[in-house]
Amino acid sequence: MPELKSVLKEIVEETGKVAEPGKATGNIPLLSKADTKKFGIAVITREGEVAVAGDADEAFSLQSISKVFSLTLALEDQGTKVWERVGREPSGDPFNSIIDLERHKGFPRNPFINAGALVIVDMLLDGGNGKDKDRVCELLKRLTGEDTIAVDEEVANSEESSGFTNRALANFAKSFDNLNNEVDDVIHAYVRQCSLALSCRQLAKAGRYLMLEGVDPETGVGLSEPSRALRINSLMMTCGQYDGSGEFAFRVGLPAKSGIGGGILAIAPNVASIGVWSPGLDHNGNSLLGTLALERLSERMGWSVFR
Amino acid sequence: MPELKSVLKEIVEETGKVAEPGKATGNIPLLSKADTKKFGIAVITREGEVAVAGDADEAFSLQSISKVFSLTLALEDQGTKVWERVGREPSGDPFNSIIDLERHKGFPRNPFINAGALVIVDMLLDGGNGKDKDRVCELLKRLTGEDTIAVDEEVANSEESSGFTNRALANFAKSFDNLNNEVDDVIHAYVRQCSLALSCRQLAKAGRYLMLEGVDPETGVGLSEPSRALRINSLMMTCGQYDGSGEFAFRVGLPAKSGIGGGILAIAPNVASIGVWSPGLDHNGNSLLGTLALERLSERMGWSVFR
Amino acid sequence: MPELKSVLKEIVEETGKVAEPGKATGNIPLLSKADTKKFGIAVITREGEVAVAGDADEAFSLQSISKVFSLTLALEDQGTKVWERVGREPSGDPFNSIIDLERHKGFPRNPFINAGALVIVDMLLDGGNGKDKDRVCELLKRLTGEDTIAVDEEVANSEESSGFTNRALANFAKSFDNLNNEVDDVIHAYVRQCSLALSCRQLAKAGRYLMLEGVDPETGVGLSEPSRALRINSLMMTCGQYDGSGEFAFRVGLPAKSGIGGGILAIAPNVASIGVWSPGLDHNGNSLLGTLALERLSERMGWSVFR
Amino acid sequence: MPELKSVLKEIVEETGKVAEPGKATGNIPLLSKADTKKFGIAVITREGEVAVAGDADEAFSLQSISKVFSLTLALEDQGTKVWERVGREPSGDPFNSIIDLERHKGFPRNPFINAGALVIVDMLLDGGNGKDKDRVCELLKRLTGEDTIAVDEEVANSEESSGFTNRALANFAKSFDNLNNEVDDVIHAYVRQCSLALSCRQLAKAGRYLMLEGVDPETGVGLSEPSRALRINSLMMTCGQYDGSGEFAFRVGLPAKSGIGGGILAIAPNVASIGVWSPGLDHNGNSLLGTLALERLSERMGWSVFR
Repeated sequence: MPELKSVLKEIVEETGKVAEPGKATGNIPLLSKADTKKFGIAVITREGEVAVAGDADEAFSLQSISKVFSLTLALEDQGTKVWERVGREPSGDPFNSIIDLERHKGFPRNPFINAGALVIVDMLLDGGNGKDKDRVCELLKRLTGEDTIAVDEEVANSEESSGFTNRALANFAKSFDNLNNEVDDVIHAYVRQCSLALSCRQLAKAGRYLMLEGVDPETGVGLSEPSRALRINSLMMTCGQYDGSGEFAFRVGLPAKSGIGGGILAIAPNVASIGVWSPGLDHNGNSLLGTLALERLSERMGWSVFR
Repeated sequence: MPELKSVLKEIVEETGKVAEPGKATGNIPLLSKADTKKFGIAVITREGEVAVAGDADEAFSLQSISKVFSLTLALEDQGTKVWERVGREPSGDPFNSIIDLERHKGFPRNPFINAGALVIVDMLLDGGNGKDKDRVCELLKRLTGEDTIAVDEEVANSEESSGFTNRALANFAKSFDNLNNEVDDVIHAYVRQCSLALSCRQLAKAGRYLMLEGVDPETGVGLSEPSRALRINSLMMTCGQYDGSGEFAFRVGLPAKSGIGGGILAIAPNVASIGVWSPGLDHNGNSLLGTLALERLSERMGWSVFR
Repeated sequence: MPELKSVLKEIVEETGKVAEPGKATGNIPLLSKADTKKFGIAVITREGEVAVAGDADEAFSLQSISKVFSLTLALEDQGTKVWERVGREPSGDPFNSIIDLERHKGFPRNPFINAGALVIVDMLLDGGNGKDKDRVCELLKRLTGEDTIAVDEEVANSEESSGFTNRALANFAKSFDNLNNEVDDVIHAYVRQCSLALSCRQLAKAGRYLMLEGVDPETGVGLSEPSRALRINSLMMTCGQYDGSGEFAFRVGLPAKSGIGGGILAIAPNVASIGVWSPGLDHNGNSLLGTLALERLSERMGWSVFR
Repeated sequence: MPELKSVLKEIVEETGKVAEPGKATGNIPLLSKADTKKFGIAVITREGEVAVAGDADEAFSLQSISKVFSLTLALEDQGTKVWERVGREPSGDPFNSIIDLERHKGFPRNPFINAGALVIVDMLLDGGNGKDKDRVCELLKRLTGEDTIAVDEEVANSEESSGFTNRALANFAKSFDNLNNEVDDVIHAYVRQCSLALSCRQLAKAGRYLMLEGVDPETGVGLSEPSRALRINSLMMTCGQYDGSGEFAFRVGLPAKSGIGGGILAIAPNVASIGVWSPGLDHNGNSLLGTLALERLSERMGWSVFR
């Protein structure tokens, strides 16, 4: 197996040569001007080795990657009851599609499309006495041991005042009685978890519990049931990259979750937790350089779960 | 790790206690009367150990599992050109849905839904000089070393005279110029590969090249590019159980392909090739006891790729 | 031609014998308890003859019939510019479906499905300086000469606090930049026009401008372009009864608009304006007895436009 | 009312000035080269006056207009039983869409989309002892009194060898048990009725029974129930121009049925039967100049049913 640090170095070089590294998201005004030349990667192995390269310590907007952590909290709150309100199938549609929600009568296909993530946030508000809107932030602080992790309030404000599609999805779910809290409260909590700012290094740290059967080796923070980690990994594999999940599994072969801020959290089970970031997106809304980097990393290190 | 043989014994016992083991397929008249109490399983490990239990030597109708082998042949014929005519994403729709084919202008979402499999068969006819309709049968003979593997002609006739949905899909693909051969020829070859009769033991044998990076350890038969095996595994993971693929990944955590004959081929990469069969199906068209058996096997042996 | 009054009498008798006159709407709590035995009808002919029968003077909730009047105002405000933001085709989907809105990128299929009506209301707010939320009420007062016409505030409150589907539609339209005003303002104005209370007699009066090329014979109130009336009639014919419009045209043969309050406004061009009401709905959300009554009336009087 | 002949003359002049008169159909190779400058119109009034202009005696391919006549025959064969296998609602989708057929489990939305027309043809084969494949041709001969009306065999061959979408639709309907005859037989009969060649003058003649409550004044040929004519007219109004039916009703205000050969049959009930033809099509597949001509005719003569 090649040396991890030198592989990361090669990856930074290769991604640096890509002439057209995608476009930053147009969905959130504040993020649309991100520098698509930025690229960072951080890997933490099972043994605790940390390797970083590029802009690995620059904070970016977590966006949909936060859905992994809110799902984790909902599963801890409610166990398998979660699946009475959200499915576990890839949707075959874009992440913000509302078509499936009508076809399936308000039952979102999985927790990683926006409709499903909103229902999950609704569960967190239930579980957290309806007031605590920053539970994902608290979890990330515990997982990373870093108290400075915080919501980027400017991004949050920008999203909250413009997120009409998400409001449509939340109202539509509520019209089918699949939202207990007020739409505004759900949107507020959702937008705040999406607007959390993390670096690649912090993200890789936060993902360690998924690499090692649900318990973070350093903090001891973990899931009440170890098998929960592998369930979350399986959902990341089949549904984590929206309508590009099949392609991603084909190229990279690792469970992962992307966000339109350009970040991706990827897990090599039992081997490594990986955070990667570059703001330019492909047509499915996944980081173009981030995906390329993970493809190379998986290939060079032999980390694909399908090998 | 527990002893494989005793785990299989436990599984036969557990599945034998299931009071309602699903219903045999209604799609093919001849298969609809299958005995849903039948259950067989066969496992071949990387080291060549063979363990079987139940009706592991009874032949059943391969049906959609054949799509794994026809895809393998198409990739050997045409390499990545295959992906110019078929996608790699889960569809979010039932296996015989035609909706996606219209939405995506004749480009099937993946090679494991019926529409995609028909386009793959069309490629095989191209590659095999348009005449050779039993290429999957020939491949299976080579992979298993068993010359007796054959099409069940009665099943083939039953399917060919009744498969109106597949004829609709083939004609629809052809209307978008995504079928080069005559519809009747494509249907004929497709029906024949689906009607191949194999036992669990033979199926597990046939799958060994997917377990070990593309080369069958006993026969030496293999893929021209080792990485091809892991690509096929990834497609089985995201798309192999139709609209139940997410659920299957969640419960079992192994790449697998099901057929409405009740068989499932599952691969524990680098560890084992597994054939399982029981004719009763769940609402997605996947073997109910077969899925349960694989869930237990994965759990007891720790074989999930997400662990 | 039979005498109108005696035909109405026959109709009241026939509808009175229907054992299962549909179910009141479940969408609006306050309306769900309406007495489905209620039935009223009022006809005003071109010559000014007024014939009524049954509960013709009992006020009911106008609901979607108000869309005819808001469309009229929008056309007077903006002329053909209206059609840059709303289409003129039947949708083939239920009235509150959001699927088409995604397929057509926020462009509603016609002004009589909810999505289209919300966009029309948005135009009225533009045209009326963004403040005047009761323009349909004002128009109805002018058309009927009755100053007592008013919003049923209790119904309005009930709808405004429960209309999650409409909020989903409005937000979704806004996500495609097809809504200029705030969602809350649009919903508020929309709910108020839907909650207007009218009797059959008042409704028939209000519809006279559509019978006689755009000018109300009594009040002189009318459209700035006479041809506008026949355009509105054509839209009522093809899209006025939601996903039951074809069936209604087949059975009744008159342009008409229904509401889930159980009312229907029907126009026999150049002949009569008709208001009918009975709260029980069929599976498409149209008044069951109201439709039956119009079928008989059209048949007995020879009023179908297709004759 | 202006003089009919002079109105037709004006129309020929106006249509002659249109610089871009649409494109001939690309669906049928043989028709794709039609001269889009061709334009003909023929009007027969209730009183028997015949007025023609342009290329009114040139034969063109009837195509989907034939669906009006096959529906007429099916209604005569089976009465209201027809509606147990075909609906009466506009589809909101293109004429050859297969999506609705899956959503509605093989029950076509109306008899004028291709799926519905194929089911109607299936009924004709039932009613005509399964052998008589040219029943529409026979009907047209009777309605026009012209024995020379015939199938254009070259067009029929061209269509039969290329109509994969229609074969897909027929097979799909059959998969839901909504086709009794063999797919090949249904396609054969369908293609033959579509390939009938008529002139505008013949078409206007053939449509007279729809103008006058089901009985052709000259031939005495008619429907067994007069009301049947107005039902067919209503279906032409709501579904006759595919996904442009609402637009057509809005602009023209007459029941009509178009074909991709560029012909349109329009009925001014109780007033006139109109045949018009020009091969250039708009984006919905309806004759561009034909629609424009009917819009002018309706406007100048005051023939809209909504007036």
